[in-house]
Amino acid sequence: MPQFMDIHRNMSGLTADDLLAAHNADLEIQDTEDVVFKQAWASPEDGVIFCLSDGPDAEAVKRIHERAGHATNEIHEVPLVV
Amino acid sequence: MPQFMDIHRNMSGLTADDLLAAHNADLEIQDTEDVVFKQAWASPEDGVIFCLSDGPDAEAVKRIHERAGHATNEIHEVPLVV
Repeated sequence: MPQFMDIHRNMSGLTADDLLAAHNADLEIQDTEDVVFKQAWASPEDGVIFCLSDGPDAEAVKRIHERAGHATNEIHEVPLVV
Repeated sequence: MPQFMDIHRNMSGLTADDLLAAHNADLEIQDTEDVVFKQAWASPEDGVIFCLSDGPDAEAVKRIHERAGHATNEIHEVPLVV
């Protein structure tokens, strides 16, 4: 399954609870697109969130984020990992 | 120790060997700044690399990447993780 990293911006002031709620909203519907959100890292100060996921393609990951209420600004398939 | 995610762009056509060589160049000198590069994900198609690290501050992470020959385009402290 391809792996993806996506970026959300304009999230300044995000709290740990906000991040957890957003992540849980993804998890609740991710099965409908065969996506698995694995981890997310957030900078409340810079308003940026990075999400790492497995999925069939970038469009599936984008659709889950959109339906969960937080569209992603960019998404990249990341086949190389070290 | 704070955790950071940084982004490198304009890396189109990057190979697995290129990524490993770049990562190893960071690892060789990271102790001089008390930085630990933990993982990196790359998109050869989009020319983007994401690096996750621990370090004393963003400037230390930036200096290691610069000295290793691959300055980062942006770096964000990411204290929130799910």
